[in-house]
Amino acid sequence: MTDDEYMRAALSLARRGLGETAPNPTVGCVIVNEGRVAGRGRTGPGGRPHAETEALAMAGDRATGATAYVSLEPCAHHGRTPPCADALAAAGIARVVIACRDPDPRVDGAGIARLQAAGIAVVEGVRAAEAMALNAGFFARIGQGRPMVTLKLATSLDGRIATKGGDSQWITGEASRRTAHALRGSHDAVMIGVGTALADDPELTCRIDAYRDAPMTRVIVDSHLRLPLSGRLARGAAEHPLWILHRSGADPARIEAFGTIGARLIEVAPAEIGVDPAAALRALGEAGLTRVLVEGGGTLAASLLRAGLVDDIAWFTAPLVIGGDGVAAVAGFGVTALAEAIRFAHNATRASGGDRLTTYRRLD
Amino acid sequence: MTDDEYMRAALSLARRGLGETAPNPTVGCVIVNEGRVAGRGRTGPGGRPHAETEALAMAGDRATGATAYVSLEPCAHHGRTPPCADALAAAGIARVVIACRDPDPRVDGAGIARLQAAGIAVVEGVRAAEAMALNAGFFARIGQGRPMVTLKLATSLDGRIATKGGDSQWITGEASRRTAHALRGSHDAVMIGVGTALADDPELTCRIDAYRDAPMTRVIVDSHLRLPLSGRLARGAAEHPLWILHRSGADPARIEAFGTIGARLIEVAPAEIGVDPAAALRALGEAGLTRVLVEGGGTLAASLLRAGLVDDIAWFTAPLVIGGDGVAAVAGFGVTALAEAIRFAHNATRASGGDRLTTYRRLD
Repeated sequence: MTDDEYMRAALSLARRGLGETAPNPTVGCVIVNEGRVAGRGRTGPGGRPHAETEALAMAGDRATGATAYVSLEPCAHHGRTPPCADALAAAGIARVVIACRDPDPRVDGAGIARLQAAGIAVVEGVRAAEAMALNAGFFARIGQGRPMVTLKLATSLDGRIATKGGDSQWITGEASRRTAHALRGSHDAVMIGVGTALADDPELTCRIDAYRDAPMTRVIVDSHLRLPLSGRLARGAAEHPLWILHRSGADPARIEAFGTIGARLIEVAPAEIGVDPAAALRALGEAGLTRVLVEGGGTLAASLLRAGLVDDIAWFTAPLVIGGDGVAAVAGFGVTALAEAIRFAHNATRASGGDRLTTYRRLD
Repeated sequence: MTDDEYMRAALSLARRGLGETAPNPTVGCVIVNEGRVAGRGRTGPGGRPHAETEALAMAGDRATGATAYVSLEPCAHHGRTPPCADALAAAGIARVVIACRDPDPRVDGAGIARLQAAGIAVVEGVRAAEAMALNAGFFARIGQGRPMVTLKLATSLDGRIATKGGDSQWITGEASRRTAHALRGSHDAVMIGVGTALADDPELTCRIDAYRDAPMTRVIVDSHLRLPLSGRLARGAAEHPLWILHRSGADPARIEAFGTIGARLIEVAPAEIGVDPAAALRALGEAGLTRVLVEGGGTLAASLLRAGLVDDIAWFTAPLVIGGDGVAAVAGFGVTALAEAIRFAHNATRASGGDRLTTYRRLD
C-alpha cells in the first residue's frame, strides 16, 4: 500500500470520532512496520487518549523502525499527557507521514520540528484537503474562535417545513430521520431556537443504535428563558447537557430554576431580535464546541445565514409541494438585491429513502 | 445487435422529434436486413411524414424480407397518407418489432392486426415503458384529452424566484438558461400567466442553435386580455404563434386587436381566480398540443398543482438562499394538512453549471 492509502485508513479512523472529541480534533493514526499494520488508534471521547498513544500501545515493540501515518500533526506541548511527538520518537518510529499541520498555536509546526530534531523523517501534506475538511470544526474554533455550523433543513421541494396550519409530521421520511440522527451524532451539539422548542417539544437526542447512549449537548437560543421546565429538553437535562443562550436581564427565578436542573446558562450580547449570532457562536467556541448542528427554526437559520456563519447545509427534500402559504424553512432576512443572497457550492446529493439529501458548502 | 438494441436506436430517433410532431406522436423506425441497417426514419415536423414512410423510402428494395423496428404501433387508418401497416406489408417487410401500441382509437391494435393479416410476424412490448414515457404527451392527449404538463421552476435553494424587491436576474446561471431553452424546444408550447408576462416581458422563444429558427407556440393565461400589444410576446406573434386563454366577457376591442396581430384567442371557463386549469388544458389538447412547458408564475403553477395537472417538474436550483421574504415559486394553494400536499417521485438529478437540475414525475 502507498502512503496515500495508509493515510486514507488513518482518516477513516479519525472520521469515526466526529462529534465526540471536542474540544480536541479527531485524529487517526496507523503504524506500519515492514508493510504490515502494527498499530491503529484514534482520539478517544473528550479528546483523550490521543490517536498516537493508542496506536503505539497496540504496536508495542513493532513501533521500532516503523512508519506512523497521522491525520494531524502530532502535538508538541505537555497537556494532560506528554507530547505525542516525543512518544513517537521514544518508541523508535523512523518516519512520520502527516496529512496536515495542527493550527493550534502550541503546535503549528512545533510537532514536526520535534520529530525532525529526534532524527525522524517527516512527510507532510498527504490528503491534506481531506484532513482539513474532516477537522473543519476544530480549525474554525482555533482560527475563528467559533465552532463550524452545519444547518440542517428538512423541507418540501418548495422549501416549506410545515403547512399554513402548522402540520409538519412528517414531511421527510424514516430514512431521512435516521440520517438526521446520525448527523447529530457527528456533531458536538445540536442547536435550535426557542420557538422550535416551544412548537415541537423535541428531545434533540441521537436515537439510533450507534449513538444511543452517548450524551448529546443541546443548545437552545432562548433570549428570555421561555423554555418550559416541564418540556422534554429540560426533563432530559441530567442525561443530556442542556445549554441555554440568553440575553442579560433574564428573570433570576428562571435562572435559578434552570441551574437546579443542571442546565448551563450562557449570557450572550443581544441583537435587534434575540441574541447576536456571532457572539453566540464565540461563546460556544469558548465552551469547547467545534461542530454545531443547527436544526431551526427559520428565524435562527436566517440570523446565522445573514451573518455568514453557516459553513455547511444538509438539506433533506421530500418530493412534495406545499405552496407559498406554508411555513418557510428560512425566515426573511432582508435580501433585496440578489447579490446579497447567501451563496453556497453544491457538495453532494444522494437518495434518502424517497427523499434527497443534498449538501452544500459555504463559498469562501 | 438484439431487438432491444435496435429498438433503442428507433427510440433515439423518435426522441429528436419531441416538440415538433404535435398533434401526432413522435415515432422512430429502423429497418434491418440481414444484420445491416437498411433504413431509418422519424416523424416529420407537424407529424408528417411518418417514420415508417421515411425508413421504407431509404431502404428501397432492401425492405424485402427485412425486420422493421417501430417505437409505436404502425397506423391502420387512412389519413393524409395510406396506413403505414399497409406500406410495410407492400414493401415486403417480414417482421415488425413494436415498442408499444398506439392508443389512438383508430389504431389501438388494428395496426398489429393488419400486419398479421398480411402474414408479417409481429413482436410487441420491446422497451414499452420507455416508449410510453417518450410519448407521454400524446398518450395524455388521447387518454385524458389534455397535453402533458411539465412545470419548469428556477429557484434559490429555499424555493424563491426573486427577492422581496423583485430582483430575479439571474438566479440560475448560463448553463441552466441554455438547458431551459432546450426544454422549450422539446415541448409543443410554452405557457405562462399574464402576471409573469407583465413583469418580465419575455419572448418565450427557443434561443439556442438547435431550435433557433423553429416557431415556438406561446400560450398566455390572460383572463382579461391585459397583455400589452407593445410587448415582446405580441410583437413576435407573426413568427411565433401566440395563443391567449381568456375568460368570457373580454373587451371586444382587445379581442379584435389581438386578432389583427394574428394571435389565437381561446375562451376558457372561469375559475374563482383566472381560468379553470382543467378546462384550459382541455382546450389546448383540442387545439392539438401534446406537451406544454409551464414556466410560471407562482399563481399558475399553484393552480395546476392543486388541480393535479402537473405531470413532470424540471426544477433548477441555484446554490443560494434568499430568505422567506423573497417571492415564492409556487403561490399558496390552501394546503393545511400534509396529506393534501402534491406528491411527486424523484426522477433524476444532474449538475447544470453551478446549479442542479432535478426532475420529478407525478405519483400515479
